[in-house]
Amino acid sequence: MNKCENMKYGVIGVGAIGGYYGSKLAHGGKEVHFLSHSDYHFVREHGMQVDSCDGSFHLDHINVYQYSADMPKCDVVIVGLKTTNNHLLPELLAPLLHAKTVVILIQNGVGVEADVQEMFPDTALVAGLAFICSAKTEPGRVNHQCYGSINLGNYSCKDEALFEAILQDFTDAGIQAASVPYEEARWKKAVWNMPFNGMTVALDTQTDLLLKNPSTRQLIRDQMMEVVGAAQHLGVTGLDEVFVDKMIDMTDHMTPYSPSMKLDYDFHRPMEIHYIYTRPIEIARKAGFAMPKLEMLEAELRFKSAKA
Amino acid sequence: MNKCENMKYGVIGVGAIGGYYGSKLAHGGKEVHFLSHSDYHFVREHGMQVDSCDGSFHLDHINVYQYSADMPKCDVVIVGLKTTNNHLLPELLAPLLHAKTVVILIQNGVGVEADVQEMFPDTALVAGLAFICSAKTEPGRVNHQCYGSINLGNYSCKDEALFEAILQDFTDAGIQAASVPYEEARWKKAVWNMPFNGMTVALDTQTDLLLKNPSTRQLIRDQMMEVVGAAQHLGVTGLDEVFVDKMIDMTDHMTPYSPSMKLDYDFHRPMEIHYIYTRPIEIARKAGFAMPKLEMLEAELRFKSAKA
Repeated sequence: MNKCENMKYGVIGVGAIGGYYGSKLAHGGKEVHFLSHSDYHFVREHGMQVDSCDGSFHLDHINVYQYSADMPKCDVVIVGLKTTNNHLLPELLAPLLHAKTVVILIQNGVGVEADVQEMFPDTALVAGLAFICSAKTEPGRVNHQCYGSINLGNYSCKDEALFEAILQDFTDAGIQAASVPYEEARWKKAVWNMPFNGMTVALDTQTDLLLKNPSTRQLIRDQMMEVVGAAQHLGVTGLDEVFVDKMIDMTDHMTPYSPSMKLDYDFHRPMEIHYIYTRPIEIARKAGFAMPKLEMLEAELRFKSAKA
Repeated sequence: MNKCENMKYGVIGVGAIGGYYGSKLAHGGKEVHFLSHSDYHFVREHGMQVDSCDGSFHLDHINVYQYSADMPKCDVVIVGLKTTNNHLLPELLAPLLHAKTVVILIQNGVGVEADVQEMFPDTALVAGLAFICSAKTEPGRVNHQCYGSINLGNYSCKDEALFEAILQDFTDAGIQAASVPYEEARWKKAVWNMPFNGMTVALDTQTDLLLKNPSTRQLIRDQMMEVVGAAQHLGVTGLDEVFVDKMIDMTDHMTPYSPSMKLDYDFHRPMEIHYIYTRPIEIARKAGFAMPKLEMLEAELRFKSAKA
């Protein structure tokens, strides 16, 4: 795996996700180049602070850029943008890519890789599914409250050794990282994300109250079963009623939680309706499977988004 | 139709509905006995005032009662209660009934007659579908803004002459009244009621904005088609896509409107979830037809109702 030694990392979006994983890799000795639109001046002067449940640390010197045109070509690029900014990717990503660059999309939803692949037909794409509670609390500062593992689902990286080398880099940097089957991972995450992201917005509430009320508990379950049905219809394995029960049981034992879409709505930021709802619903419908309750949720979110 | 002459009318619930139709009948010279819980003392002293687009009038003397046990047996009883009070009907209605009494349920939803019939297996029931904008503005005062016609759907009145005589009494009193097929009338009204009542509550909005947003316009249409599908599945005739288009077109031309459930929610009154949602959904499901988007709306309303 000689070719994989000393890989150069790029990070687009220095927020809760890009800021955390990029800083961990840099802290672990990797060469990391950050693109930061809003925090460029602060981070260049003050570096990055990660307040972490696993041990806090500070990075004094950061390779930070305001424009991607100024950045070097990278072997691996981590995209930590919200999908609502994916229309910027052609411009932001292009300068960082060489023929063998692997792009890791740590983003929400279903269909992201297919759409980014259309923008960059020859680039190797990997889905990053982060299981983490983190937030950017101020410029150059990430608060990592708990969890932190990442699953990587190989979408179009044909170089298996390179893919394994990235996993190894993450692991070496103290990040719990594992390889997962791409389709299964994206749809499994949707089983939780599709019901809870939208329903907490629709009913202005948190995960625990949705499960305490018998009517919405059943509704959440029905919506999860719609995702399972879609995945099964698409030939994706590993999703069934047992998995749904597990997700509900897990949520019963979580502290009351506001998913990212609820935070986006409350803070008047755009919601990721397209990739969390529209695209998976569309993909399922094209394959002949309807998700009526999630379709309705999508419509309610579109209405609320237009009103906000 | 000798037996039908000088029929004695009873009215339970002297609100926007019972107050209006009862007062119209009394004003037209019929003998009408009103049961009024909250406004008894006021109405006994001051009578009833109807402020009406068709000509206002005042009734000085009203046969008003605080307890139905004090009321005479009636030939026709108009029930103008909200269905959320239907658990009171066994007590309220029993003293007014003789062997041939016809009870007209001017109430929202589907399944009301079947449930009241279980309470009173031998009583003749008629569904009253009011097309009226009216409100009780203060004790003993009804404001009738527009419309006012009523359709009567014969549920279990075997005496056709009696049913016709009631229609004639309404007509004589200046009320536009017509006979309609029971099942068709209830389900046709549900085509409008089920989407708009709940959606204005779920999204805290009015009819016009739901139709202006393309996502919720489509959702309203989908929900209307669920009602049409249920009715067709139950063998009810007269409901199709053309009727749905007509309902949407009609609502496009209405002034922005808050349906009764929205007013109930805003004024912290109980919502008629059971008869507007639970019962029709249940009736359709028992016949093998699912209404997923209306099921979801029901769950959202249950959640909001429990929270309120």
